[in-house]
Amino acid sequence: MQTLTVDLGDRSYPIHIGAALLHRADLILPHLAQKRVMVVTNTTVGPLYLEPLRKALEAAGVRVAEVVLPDGEAYKNWETLNLIFDALLSDRAERKTTLIALGGGVIGDMTGFAAACYQRGVPFIQIPTTLLSQVDSSVGGKTGINHPLGKNMIGAFYQPKLVLADTAALNTLPARELSAGLAEVIKYGLIRDAEFLAWLEANMDRLRALDTDAISHAVYRSCEIKAQVVAQDEREGGLRAILNLGHTFGHAIETGMGYGAWLHGEAVAAGMVLAAETSQRLGWLGEGEVARTRALIRAAGLPDVAPNLGVETYLEYMGHDKKVEGGKMRFVLLKKLGEAVITDAVPAGVLAGVLTPPH
Amino acid sequence: MQTLTVDLGDRSYPIHIGAALLHRADLILPHLAQKRVMVVTNTTVGPLYLEPLRKALEAAGVRVAEVVLPDGEAYKNWETLNLIFDALLSDRAERKTTLIALGGGVIGDMTGFAAACYQRGVPFIQIPTTLLSQVDSSVGGKTGINHPLGKNMIGAFYQPKLVLADTAALNTLPARELSAGLAEVIKYGLIRDAEFLAWLEANMDRLRALDTDAISHAVYRSCEIKAQVVAQDEREGGLRAILNLGHTFGHAIETGMGYGAWLHGEAVAAGMVLAAETSQRLGWLGEGEVARTRALIRAAGLPDVAPNLGVETYLEYMGHDKKVEGGKMRFVLLKKLGEAVITDAVPAGVLAGVLTPPH
Repeated sequence: MQTLTVDLGDRSYPIHIGAALLHRADLILPHLAQKRVMVVTNTTVGPLYLEPLRKALEAAGVRVAEVVLPDGEAYKNWETLNLIFDALLSDRAERKTTLIALGGGVIGDMTGFAAACYQRGVPFIQIPTTLLSQVDSSVGGKTGINHPLGKNMIGAFYQPKLVLADTAALNTLPARELSAGLAEVIKYGLIRDAEFLAWLEANMDRLRALDTDAISHAVYRSCEIKAQVVAQDEREGGLRAILNLGHTFGHAIETGMGYGAWLHGEAVAAGMVLAAETSQRLGWLGEGEVARTRALIRAAGLPDVAPNLGVETYLEYMGHDKKVEGGKMRFVLLKKLGEAVITDAVPAGVLAGVLTPPH
Repeated sequence: MQTLTVDLGDRSYPIHIGAALLHRADLILPHLAQKRVMVVTNTTVGPLYLEPLRKALEAAGVRVAEVVLPDGEAYKNWETLNLIFDALLSDRAERKTTLIALGGGVIGDMTGFAAACYQRGVPFIQIPTTLLSQVDSSVGGKTGINHPLGKNMIGAFYQPKLVLADTAALNTLPARELSAGLAEVIKYGLIRDAEFLAWLEANMDRLRALDTDAISHAVYRSCEIKAQVVAQDEREGGLRAILNLGHTFGHAIETGMGYGAWLHGEAVAAGMVLAAETSQRLGWLGEGEVARTRALIRAAGLPDVAPNLGVETYLEYMGHDKKVEGGKMRFVLLKKLGEAVITDAVPAGVLAGVLTPPH
C-alpha cells in the first residue's frame, strides 16, 4: 500500500492505493466521527463489493445502512440524488454519520454532493472502484449532478475525509471502462509530465493487462499530479483548469451524443485529440507530437476521432461549459507534450477548422 | 444608513441597514465580479420592487436577468430551485455572474443554495424585504430547501457578498408577517441580551407601527447579535445552536401542521414558549419570567400556545431535526432571560409534560 496526502490545510486527507484495501476497516475507522455510515453504491458494484465492506465494518462495531442506485451517467441527476436524501432521512442519519461512496465516478460525484448538502454538510469517504474514479473524480473534491442543459452544472467543492483506491477492484472492470480511465491517466502525462507520458507509451500493454505493479504506479502518479494541482488551486481559480484538458470538447461530445452514449473517458480522449490539433494549428505542437498523442490514445483502446456534430453544435454545447468567462471560451491546450496552457485566444477560424471533419 | 460587518476572514461581508436602500446601485456595484446579475424574486415581491432595482442597476451598466418564483414556504423545494437553475443555464450565466435574492427568507434560502450549487459556487447578494429575513435568514450563510421528511434538510453554508436591509420595504409587509419577524427579534433578546429584551417590551407598539427609528434599532441590534454568534461559530459546531431557540419545537409545529399553515416566526414563537416552559420545569426560569416571555410574544401579535399535535408526533418530527446527535435530542433552553444554554439532558417526563396540553 502507498499513501499520498492531498494538502488542503484543515481539509487535508490521505489517499491509500493498493490491492485488497476495500474491506480494510482499520483504514476507515480512524476517519469516522461516529460508528455509523451510509454506503452508497449501484446495482453493478453493490453485488460485487458491498458485502465484504459491510461485514468488515460491522465486525468493527459500525452500524451500516445502504442505498443502491441505478447504474450509469444517465442517472446522475436530481431524482437519483434524492434517493440518497430519502434514505438518509428515513434512517435518521445525523450530522456525524459518514457517507461512503462505493463505485465509480457517478457514485462518487453524487455521494459527495449529497454529503455536501445533507444537513448542510456531513463527512464522506471515497472508495472508487473504477480506474477513472481512482485517478480522477475521487480526488479533489468536485462533486455534483448533471442538468438537462449541461453536465456537472449543479454541485459543490467538498472534500472527502479519505480515499481508498483498491486496485484489485479493477479486475471486475469491463475493458471499455478500463480504457476510459486510461484517458485521464494519459491526460496527466500530457499536461504535466512528459516522462510519465513516455512511460505510458512503453507500458500501455501491461496496463491494459492489469499488471499489478504497472497499474499501481499509474494510479499513484496520476493521483500525485492531481493532488499537487488541487493543493495549489482548490476552487479552480486558475491552474486547476489544466485538469480539464480535452474536457470542454469532451463535454460537448457527451452532451451532443446524449449522456451515456460515449463514456466520459472516451469523450475526453477524442477531446484531447481536438485540443492537440488546435495546439498544432496554433503552432505549439508538431505533426509528430499530435501523431504520438493519437497513437497513445488508440493504444489505450480509445477513440482518436471526435464525432461529427457540426461546428455549431460543438460551439453551442461548449458555450455552456463552466470554463466560459466574460462570454469568451477558455481552452486548455498544449504548449508541448507535458505542458498545458490556458488561453481564450483561439481564432474562430482555427476552431472551425478543427471541428470540421475529417479530423 | 448603518453598516455592520459579519467577520468571517476572507468571507467577511457588510450588512447595510436603512430606509430606501433597495435601489442604491452604488452600494451593490463594488460587490459585483462582473456587470451581470440574475435577480431571483417571487410573485409578491417582484411587482413591488423588481423594477426600481432593475432600473438602478441597468442605469449603472449592469445586465439584469430575472426569475420570478411562486411565493411561499410550500415552494421551498427542489422543483422551484430548479427553476433558478433553468434560468441560469438558459441565460448562460457564468461563474462570476452574481445572484441577487430579492424577497423574504424562502427566496433568500433558495437563492443562496442555488448560488452555492450553480457551477459549484457563484457570488450572491441578499436584499431581504421582510423583517424575518432582515434580522435572521439573510445573515449567517445558512441556505437550503425543504424535503418532504424535514425542513431545511438539504442545503449549504454559503455566505453572501453583501446584505442590503431596506427598512422601507417593511411598509408593504402584511401585519402577520411583521409579527412573524418580531419572533426572531424577541429571540435575540431572550438568548443574549436582557437589556434589549426590556427595550422590546417598552417599544413593541412602536415596532408594530413601523416607527422608523425603532425598526432600524431592532434590525441593527438583531443583526449585530447574530453576526457576533456566527463569527464565533460559522458552521454550527457549538455556540451557533443558541440561535435555534424555539426552532426544534417550531420545526415540529411547522411540519406537523403542514408547511405554510403556520408562518415560521409563529411556530418559533410558540416553540420559544415551550422552551421557556421546559426551562421552568428544569428550575431555571421562574413563573414570572415565563409569563413575561408569553406576554411579549402576545404583544408582538404572535401565538403563545403551541398546537396540540400529541407528544408522539412532536417527538417524531423533533427527532428529524438537525440538532440530533448520537440519537439524543439537543435543546436550546434558557438559564435566565438573556442567556441561552444547550443541553441534551431533558428527562422524557419533563418533555411529555410540556408537550401535553393545556400548556
